[in-house]
Amino acid sequence: MADGYDVGTDLVAALSRAAAQDALIVVAVPMPAVQSILTAVAEHAPTAPLTDVVSVKAEMAAAVEAQGLQARYVGGHPMAGTNHSGWSATDPTLFTDAVWVVSTDPGVDADVWVRVARLALDCGSVVVPAESGEHDRAVARISHLPHVLAETLAIVGAAGGPLALGLAAGSFRDGTRVASSSPNLVRAMTEGNAAALRTALDEALDALTAAREELDEGSTKSLVDAGNTARLQYEQHQRFEITDITPGEPGWREKLQDAGRRGGVVRQIRSASPG
Amino acid sequence: MADGYDVGTDLVAALSRAAAQDALIVVAVPMPAVQSILTAVAEHAPTAPLTDVVSVKAEMAAAVEAQGLQARYVGGHPMAGTNHSGWSATDPTLFTDAVWVVSTDPGVDADVWVRVARLALDCGSVVVPAESGEHDRAVARISHLPHVLAETLAIVGAAGGPLALGLAAGSFRDGTRVASSSPNLVRAMTEGNAAALRTALDEALDALTAAREELDEGSTKSLVDAGNTARLQYEQHQRFEITDITPGEPGWREKLQDAGRRGGVVRQIRSASPG
Repeated sequence: MADGYDVGTDLVAALSRAAAQDALIVVAVPMPAVQSILTAVAEHAPTAPLTDVVSVKAEMAAAVEAQGLQARYVGGHPMAGTNHSGWSATDPTLFTDAVWVVSTDPGVDADVWVRVARLALDCGSVVVPAESGEHDRAVARISHLPHVLAETLAIVGAAGGPLALGLAAGSFRDGTRVASSSPNLVRAMTEGNAAALRTALDEALDALTAAREELDEGSTKSLVDAGNTARLQYEQHQRFEITDITPGEPGWREKLQDAGRRGGVVRQIRSASPG
Repeated sequence: MADGYDVGTDLVAALSRAAAQDALIVVAVPMPAVQSILTAVAEHAPTAPLTDVVSVKAEMAAAVEAQGLQARYVGGHPMAGTNHSGWSATDPTLFTDAVWVVSTDPGVDADVWVRVARLALDCGSVVVPAESGEHDRAVARISHLPHVLAETLAIVGAAGGPLALGLAAGSFRDGTRVASSSPNLVRAMTEGNAAALRTALDEALDALTAAREELDEGSTKSLVDAGNTARLQYEQHQRFEITDITPGEPGWREKLQDAGRRGGVVRQIRSASPG
């Protein structure tokens, strides 16, 4: 408010105003609170453009469709955040250079897509176009599985008592960092993406079971070589800029989705549509 | 050398000089290279005080005993390091406020213990007294298991291809950081502590298998609550300073070991022995 923004707790007033001005509504609550917000949106601003920042996209898209709001909905997910919560955790640079997934699900409206992408770009992020299910499977691997492994590592470490906790250094600190996140937030993320997380967790269990068998023979070679190679792949991963696709042109959605799958990001919107 | 230190590659000359001056020999090579160094120590400086910085202590102690060098050996392990190797990774503050385990195995000599502890304190570290087997079981939990989980996370993440790697943010970066460590170093650590690591890995597999079953019911509550509690235990872990035990006094070794087990550290040596 001190900076001149309107801030309010009157949801109906805010939604009515959004509806009157065709303003972009951003749902920024954890998944368990989404239902009640969408019910209010459906009542007071059913035709306003709609996006969200919820970390699971298929479940969110289904909730939007259940309210009949899919026509002007384009899901979003900024891949940014820390293990801290609340106002005091505010960081003005949080979105700078973050990747912000913008949904390419069948049926998304090109004009709303552009508005959501511009929001992400205005926040300093780059846009990764992706279909909701593909997004969920990817983040299960690189966001939700890390939480599951961090919780597990914290549990096994603390079971070693004060001696183990006192000896813990960088590898334990970093490997358990996200276990200090709010349990409700972690549960909302992981439980909201349960199906994809199961697949990722099964792959982790397979790798660990194989490592356990290898360790019985006194070796960790296969695990360590494969893990090191994979980490280098991550370090060497290069985004490329998507420059030749205009939202609204024939096949734009599939083209964006394919480019996103190959590591492409949007840094600039070349559409003629009003933003 | 520029700073006035003697630096040489003539092992026999260095060991002969150490033997003549009763200087403290610090073995600072990975476990697979220990054997050849100890053979040279046994030949050229068999009565000089001896310590090491190898990350596994029971196997190291056995190698020392196999060379008949145990009378003046006190094992050490500074819990410091990064995923970088080589001269360019030098960090003058690496040991500052690190914990440096100094062995309290049966038979350790109090005077050598004091010299090794003083080395650690001179480097800016604090000393944690611990028996070799207890050390190995503790570091399996908080140092070697983190490596195994980091390799696993890197593998499952990279299997998601460019989309997953492009979406990876803080939780994946931190959770896989130590997978970029030199594979040889990781193998030396983990394979050198295989027995203790098996126990820690089995506990992790149990926790993950239980989490997998819980996820089938759509919940991650037990895992997340236990993991968050464990991480808070780690964050709230308080060292206490051991002030009332003098190396050499009756029962000093057992007393130090017990204090170390409860989270005690030595910050100052109160022995009258010459350092």
